[in-house]
Amino acid sequence: MAKKRILSGMRPTGPLHLGNLHGALANWKDMQDDYECYFFIADWHALTTDYDSTEPIRGNIHNVFLDWLSVGLSPEKSTLFVQSYVKEHAELFLLLSMITPLPWLERNPTYKEQIAQLENRDLSTFGFLGYPVLQAADIIMYKANGVPVGIDQAPHVELTREIARRFNHFYGDIFPVPETILTETSKILGLDRRKMSKSYNNAIFLSDSPKEIRKKVSRMITDPQRARRTDPGNPDICNVFAFHQLYSDKKTPQRIDPECRSAEIGCVECKKLMAENLINALEPIREKRSYYEDHPEIVSEVMDDGNHRAHKVARQTMEEVREAVKI
Amino acid sequence: MAKKRILSGMRPTGPLHLGNLHGALANWKDMQDDYECYFFIADWHALTTDYDSTEPIRGNIHNVFLDWLSVGLSPEKSTLFVQSYVKEHAELFLLLSMITPLPWLERNPTYKEQIAQLENRDLSTFGFLGYPVLQAADIIMYKANGVPVGIDQAPHVELTREIARRFNHFYGDIFPVPETILTETSKILGLDRRKMSKSYNNAIFLSDSPKEIRKKVSRMITDPQRARRTDPGNPDICNVFAFHQLYSDKKTPQRIDPECRSAEIGCVECKKLMAENLINALEPIREKRSYYEDHPEIVSEVMDDGNHRAHKVARQTMEEVREAVKI
Repeated sequence: MAKKRILSGMRPTGPLHLGNLHGALANWKDMQDDYECYFFIADWHALTTDYDSTEPIRGNIHNVFLDWLSVGLSPEKSTLFVQSYVKEHAELFLLLSMITPLPWLERNPTYKEQIAQLENRDLSTFGFLGYPVLQAADIIMYKANGVPVGIDQAPHVELTREIARRFNHFYGDIFPVPETILTETSKILGLDRRKMSKSYNNAIFLSDSPKEIRKKVSRMITDPQRARRTDPGNPDICNVFAFHQLYSDKKTPQRIDPECRSAEIGCVECKKLMAENLINALEPIREKRSYYEDHPEIVSEVMDDGNHRAHKVARQTMEEVREAVKI
Repeated sequence: MAKKRILSGMRPTGPLHLGNLHGALANWKDMQDDYECYFFIADWHALTTDYDSTEPIRGNIHNVFLDWLSVGLSPEKSTLFVQSYVKEHAELFLLLSMITPLPWLERNPTYKEQIAQLENRDLSTFGFLGYPVLQAADIIMYKANGVPVGIDQAPHVELTREIARRFNHFYGDIFPVPETILTETSKILGLDRRKMSKSYNNAIFLSDSPKEIRKKVSRMITDPQRARRTDPGNPDICNVFAFHQLYSDKKTPQRIDPECRSAEIGCVECKKLMAENLINALEPIREKRSYYEDHPEIVSEVMDDGNHRAHKVARQTMEEVREAVKI
């Protein structure tokens, strides 16, 4: 039986961090063996929020590609590409615009939420309202059967499903209606215990050096109630303890738990231990990254090859679409 | 001094009629000598209102081209092309979407008007709201200095000017801000004295045969107060009289005016006279049309050539745009 096809993407907002790794990349890496995967860098989507500062986008694209290759996304298994290379996405976006009812977008639960969250930027643009339409174009262009997303993105896949159905209703059965493949959301928090995010300045990046990691881990907020070294701590609410559970061997958290509660171990020592384990765990990623940093021509080749492969599929889809729409 | 560049377009909604001739085409024809002209068939725009019935679009495109050549639009003077051939319009539409504030579109005076007018169709789509953005892309793609439009379209050109300014503000001085060139609106009414329009079934088409013209003219509503042949008529409010002023020699309306008021001439006779003059006036158009109908390969060649010329300009513009937007 042919493998099912999935597609997912990321905006080129900057270097990727542990939140991205556990929220998406680790999952994508595993899916490569079971699915025909299309992973793309959504650079046009970056304009929905950052239309007034586009300078970093090209550099970010290169860096995201480096991160992808470092964590084990493989051009031999998957098609890795850049959205804006495949101009067909814009054409399909235009065509889907014509059939997408405005209320579907206005009712989009994440729309008003995001406008409220990013209140220091003016997001009330036509493009920002329409980004689920562009997402729909991205997804159905490759006739994806499924889209791996976190729960927060699930409403957008729902919209894509509706738009695909509506297209098929008007113009014939061209597109599969893609399934939502819910991925576990990363439970990793940032240094300050908020959601890990580049814009919160609380992230540990995949590209951080051991020195940077040690420094960042030393800044991590532990149990806020534990003011002094002699106070007992509570691992249940300690972010460093959560990292131990992910990056240290199984015995370590078992040992630390009582030692923390009885103030036998202090936060400084506990962090130092965790930092070294984290550094070790990320070593294979750093190693691959270093290889690709020394060989930018390989990264460019991989990107070109992925772009061409994606473009070929998109061209074929758009031929069918134009024939169906009669335009 | 180099000629200034203008651009205007028409949707491929069906055969063109006298309203189109006097409202736009006659004017376009004259402008060909003073401007570098780009005239295009806005087939993607047709989807904003007719996304659920696209079957006739391709045939309509061919017919509009026939009509254009028949009235004297000349591929030697102007670039005549089809929007959807130049995919760059979709890419620029996408980019302009990102910088166009939603309130600019929601406040567009013709937006709500059109939704109200065409109430039997569901027009509350994302694409319909955004069609001024697509228009802006159409216009600035060719760096047009001016856009000849009727007064009803003037607000859209105003929006294009705003969008061009905003693009230049963010990304550098790429686009001229196009001037609105107001053209006189056609004073020709339809057979039933409403605005001449294909959808009102009250139009005389450029492609109508003499027989069809005679039949249609015989249906024309004259002075509604003149119920009987013996009643005096009022040429001031008579649509047939208005046609005489356009299509008969100067002396004819001068003679008919008193004869109508004194009931010396009846509507039937008056219409017959006007029909023959109209048929004569349209004869050169019908003649050219007949030539191109017999040579569809020439029409196709003209269309291909115009498409390629337009595409070349659009490609060049988009290279500049991508460099400016850094994407």
